[in-house]
Amino acid sequence: MTDTRLQDMRAQVDVINLQILELLSKRATLTSDIGKVQAELGTTFYDPQREAFMLEQLERNNKGPFSNETIKALFREIFRASLALEEKEARAKILVQRKTPDEKTIIRMPDGYEIGNGDFTMISGPCAVESFEQMDTTAAALAERGVRILRGMAYKPRTSPYDFQGMGEPGLQIARQVANKYNMYITSEIMDLSQIPMMSDYVDIFWVGARNMYNSFLLKALGHVRQPVILKRGMSATLEEFLYAAEYIVSSGNPNVILIERGIRTFEKWTRNTLDIGGVAVLMLESHLPIIVDVSHSAGRRDIAIPMAKAAKACGADGLMVEVHPNPPVAMSDAKQQLYIHQFHELMDALGDVRKEPVAT
Amino acid sequence: MTDTRLQDMRAQVDVINLQILELLSKRATLTSDIGKVQAELGTTFYDPQREAFMLEQLERNNKGPFSNETIKALFREIFRASLALEEKEARAKILVQRKTPDEKTIIRMPDGYEIGNGDFTMISGPCAVESFEQMDTTAAALAERGVRILRGMAYKPRTSPYDFQGMGEPGLQIARQVANKYNMYITSEIMDLSQIPMMSDYVDIFWVGARNMYNSFLLKALGHVRQPVILKRGMSATLEEFLYAAEYIVSSGNPNVILIERGIRTFEKWTRNTLDIGGVAVLMLESHLPIIVDVSHSAGRRDIAIPMAKAAKACGADGLMVEVHPNPPVAMSDAKQQLYIHQFHELMDALGDVRKEPVAT
Amino acid sequence: MTDTRLQDMRAQVDVINLQILELLSKRATLTSDIGKVQAELGTTFYDPQREAFMLEQLERNNKGPFSNETIKALFREIFRASLALEEKEARAKILVQRKTPDEKTIIRMPDGYEIGNGDFTMISGPCAVESFEQMDTTAAALAERGVRILRGMAYKPRTSPYDFQGMGEPGLQIARQVANKYNMYITSEIMDLSQIPMMSDYVDIFWVGARNMYNSFLLKALGHVRQPVILKRGMSATLEEFLYAAEYIVSSGNPNVILIERGIRTFEKWTRNTLDIGGVAVLMLESHLPIIVDVSHSAGRRDIAIPMAKAAKACGADGLMVEVHPNPPVAMSDAKQQLYIHQFHELMDALGDVRKEPVAT
Amino acid sequence: MTDTRLQDMRAQVDVINLQILELLSKRATLTSDIGKVQAELGTTFYDPQREAFMLEQLERNNKGPFSNETIKALFREIFRASLALEEKEARAKILVQRKTPDEKTIIRMPDGYEIGNGDFTMISGPCAVESFEQMDTTAAALAERGVRILRGMAYKPRTSPYDFQGMGEPGLQIARQVANKYNMYITSEIMDLSQIPMMSDYVDIFWVGARNMYNSFLLKALGHVRQPVILKRGMSATLEEFLYAAEYIVSSGNPNVILIERGIRTFEKWTRNTLDIGGVAVLMLESHLPIIVDVSHSAGRRDIAIPMAKAAKACGADGLMVEVHPNPPVAMSDAKQQLYIHQFHELMDALGDVRKEPVAT
Repeated sequence: MTDTRLQDMRAQVDVINLQILELLSKRATLTSDIGKVQAELGTTFYDPQREAFMLEQLERNNKGPFSNETIKALFREIFRASLALEEKEARAKILVQRKTPDEKTIIRMPDGYEIGNGDFTMISGPCAVESFEQMDTTAAALAERGVRILRGMAYKPRTSPYDFQGMGEPGLQIARQVANKYNMYITSEIMDLSQIPMMSDYVDIFWVGARNMYNSFLLKALGHVRQPVILKRGMSATLEEFLYAAEYIVSSGNPNVILIERGIRTFEKWTRNTLDIGGVAVLMLESHLPIIVDVSHSAGRRDIAIPMAKAAKACGADGLMVEVHPNPPVAMSDAKQQLYIHQFHELMDALGDVRKEPVAT
Repeated sequence: MTDTRLQDMRAQVDVINLQILELLSKRATLTSDIGKVQAELGTTFYDPQREAFMLEQLERNNKGPFSNETIKALFREIFRASLALEEKEARAKILVQRKTPDEKTIIRMPDGYEIGNGDFTMISGPCAVESFEQMDTTAAALAERGVRILRGMAYKPRTSPYDFQGMGEPGLQIARQVANKYNMYITSEIMDLSQIPMMSDYVDIFWVGARNMYNSFLLKALGHVRQPVILKRGMSATLEEFLYAAEYIVSSGNPNVILIERGIRTFEKWTRNTLDIGGVAVLMLESHLPIIVDVSHSAGRRDIAIPMAKAAKACGADGLMVEVHPNPPVAMSDAKQQLYIHQFHELMDALGDVRKEPVAT
Repeated sequence: MTDTRLQDMRAQVDVINLQILELLSKRATLTSDIGKVQAELGTTFYDPQREAFMLEQLERNNKGPFSNETIKALFREIFRASLALEEKEARAKILVQRKTPDEKTIIRMPDGYEIGNGDFTMISGPCAVESFEQMDTTAAALAERGVRILRGMAYKPRTSPYDFQGMGEPGLQIARQVANKYNMYITSEIMDLSQIPMMSDYVDIFWVGARNMYNSFLLKALGHVRQPVILKRGMSATLEEFLYAAEYIVSSGNPNVILIERGIRTFEKWTRNTLDIGGVAVLMLESHLPIIVDVSHSAGRRDIAIPMAKAAKACGADGLMVEVHPNPPVAMSDAKQQLYIHQFHELMDALGDVRKEPVAT
Repeated sequence: MTDTRLQDMRAQVDVINLQILELLSKRATLTSDIGKVQAELGTTFYDPQREAFMLEQLERNNKGPFSNETIKALFREIFRASLALEEKEARAKILVQRKTPDEKTIIRMPDGYEIGNGDFTMISGPCAVESFEQMDTTAAALAERGVRILRGMAYKPRTSPYDFQGMGEPGLQIARQVANKYNMYITSEIMDLSQIPMMSDYVDIFWVGARNMYNSFLLKALGHVRQPVILKRGMSATLEEFLYAAEYIVSSGNPNVILIERGIRTFEKWTRNTLDIGGVAVLMLESHLPIIVDVSHSAGRRDIAIPMAKAAKACGADGLMVEVHPNPPVAMSDAKQQLYIHQFHELMDALGDVRKEPVAT
């Protein structure tokens, strides 16, 4: 297949490769220095007019055989690489990104309870607070199995304005009372940043729902609270957008963010959403934040909660979110997906050990 | 194919059909009366415990040949129909739903300019306010072609916290100044309800972006402003969710809502989103609100803006949203999709007549 | 909340419910008898003209308060239930559907090796046969870990006609030779029913790729081969369509079908497809056929194969499909997703025990 | 913002840019020569082992500041560009791609009737042939409005093996008889390449359904028939895959391919699929093949056929496919989406002129 002509020409290509490499390195050093000057001057690294100028110059000087489009595309890649280098130096990296294989955010609650420390964290409770009895019955069962984080949802984002919108502050009072009784922490959904002061009196962990994942004003405001924040993936958010949403919180000052994968929207009709278990695996590679799998909203049906929970645990997630209700068929929301209490016990039995799986690196 | 046995049995089925019909009507009258009593008592129509009781009773009395599941499914349909009837009587219907084929919301601006009156409304301007010159150059071109509504975006919802987030209030000042100069109205994106008082000083039409379509707190707050509201469809929102989001605004007191279809998320990679033109046609059947088509975010590329704009107009949409920038390649956001000014003129030429297409009914 | 008026009216509703129930049962018995006569006469159960007649009659007799549309919708549900009853009696059920919680298809290969018997089945090998050495090196590693089913793909369905289309029959010869050497079974993709006679000389298990899942002519033809058939879910097939595709094979005479979930198409870009792990859980509830999870095509990247494989095993799947290549970067197809041989060993270590998880019922 | 330090460093960057450009051009000429030698030797251009060698060499010589990954990514782009150049020279381009703005495939039928010549082509008829009367009634109405291409579908790809699968050859005989009576052409779906000889006796235009778009064996076989081929986009095919499917036919010898966009699968539930009108606009830019819009399968409902048809025409499509049936509610398939005959007349009135829109270029 190879004859001497080919060998000879390939050797020439090899030489050129190394010459290009040398020029690229020299260029990168220069643009890095430019970046430093720009940082001093307080200007941004990305300068589209400068890029346009350079591209035009290259186009003018290009004699082929590459087309102008190809040349511009190649140089745009070089510009992007240089920009990435400058940004990297200036800011190290995206804060929520894992820099070493064993970097891991561990969230410590006031009494020393930890999330992300290698235990498999359970977050559970009914979809919404409906009454003291409902919360009390549920929490008793959860506490019996060692669950420490209770859903205490008092504001429900609903598709229709005529659907049940949650009990509001009285619901938070019930949740607090029940949580105190069973020595649990409350997580509760915040819908608007104006609720922060009021909710801070009741809530141990703020919860940002899928519908608010892109709400950058809320995310930035939650960068300033003392409580950890649970952040759900938007219903059609890419993983990149999800991590950037977390970055809004962390870069505003609150490092204690917990990610929840809750399924994405697809054409499939036998489940409410499609749990992106591969996405969970990717997030574990990309980020040091704890990652929880919500098997209730992803499935939308309780009959597959156990195999899905086992899958979540096996793939190395830090924990599970599952809805439990004393009488699911009469629940005021998500009646089809909440577990009966006896099913919750079966699920806990099926999960076994509370240690999470080690992540392959 | 039919013999006398079949004919005879079918006649019996016909009789039973009419007996069931009679019982269903009687039942509906009764549940409607129950609904009235409940309305007096201030309770909601939907009572899951009552339903559970009735289903259990039916299950106990079912002797086949239908399975219990089939019987329960059929009665759940009957319950749902009754509930729909009660809700219909109590509230007529969803406010944003079209009740007659020619019902149409017309939005009147202070100087008498109308949206939804049968003219084809153009909304245009750059993706974001970047400078006075940029806005001035663009607005001059738009005004020349009779465009009255100018994008004056000063807050940009961005995936990354490190991307350009908009000029903020100074951007609004620029937009206001330019709009006044060319006798135009400003529409500008609101990100959080706390911005309402400040923005009200600058903005003629509030704009709710795709990322905030589910933000019910913001939507309800915009039910109390005097300005009309442009509402974009969420990036993976169903049409039903979209109309309910509008219902949040309208049911809170502001009838002047304009819907924008801006493409939905799919697997396709050659366009940024997939413009749901069939969805536009469905929305026109279902709702009386004006419907605008955004050909910039749906395509994510400027080279197909003209055929898409013509499609939008032909299918009966009330107008078009298209981004225009004096120098798109150096734009601080959405550089690939904004039209050059000369392209905007070509698009206006291609659209021709400013009257919208009549909707087939 | 309830007063005597309500109690009284509710009691009347209860009576009507039971009267409707009785009529529904009577009607179902009649239509079931009609179905038997039709079966004798050899006509199909579904008779749209008869339905149209009945609906028209009901419309004519409807005096409200339900609208004609509501009445027609309710009766269409009743018709559908009756039809389901007739079909159930005539055919019991869809063949691939699980009728009892412990029903399970076990596929026995000639030497007694079984798939679906509770062991966790590994199917592995390179994406495509490229050379004897490549197959031999891979198979040696697989055999070392007890893998019995070897990918021996000689026909590759490719997006572009200019991409590598597989080695063809010489590839099958290589695969056969290598499989014999290591006492393995070959599975190989069939692209067209005309290949059946030739491929039958080489192949132990036919493989239907995602692109052919809807190819009913091929599926029916594979109902007549003696070998088992592996059926991959189409890239955007619903679970219902997937099971019906299997039904085409089984109802044509071949009960030995193995389902493979391989990820579905979504907007997510960090994985090639989105593995539908919830779908796997649903399939295990709905069907008695063995279900295999393909972690290579679903992820499209090798760095998350291990957590995904563990998730697949934990959720109760019957086995795993993973691509392995001696030198993935130079593979002629799917270079990014094939495992290095050392990674395959790590994956086998991570999976541990070869018994599958019991399915929760 | 710029000071002399910046200006100086930028000038140095400009010099390096041009040096890199020169090396890239030199490299491209060399690899192009290598490609010619390879073409003589009959080897493929893509040589992954050579690439692996070059990347390794670069990695060994890289001293920063770019990371090895960045360097490898940049060079992979360079390799890809070189490869593209070689392939371009060897094969000019993808056959179905438009090379000049006014290149357009015009398909001539035996009597001189043309598709793609600037007229707006109507393809219509019922979903499936059910009887002579049904076809005759429909065709009479179509012929009255000048429609020349009749759907004569005798093989129906159905989800369930128990659904109506079409009348088979007797259906083709009916279609042929009716088409002859009204001087129309028949298009009919082919399911398997084994049907080609038989169907060739009846069919004027072969039809490849969405489920067979990836069936490369069938596509290649249709490259050898004398009839034109209508190719539908797969239900979740990307536009790139769609064009490559057409390339399978054209590169096998049959240039007369007509593309049909029929909607893609998304989460939206109010329409059966989502018509990708932006995709139609992109296809018109990318390809010279005629492009038809199917408003029946994309919508799945007849009440929005008119606005969708107008949109299709306005965006510059070459024609329309719409299903028409004398009595849609009793149709054996797709009952909800077929137009009544009076609706077909309304649609033709609404479309007006039979000339297609010029494509903006």
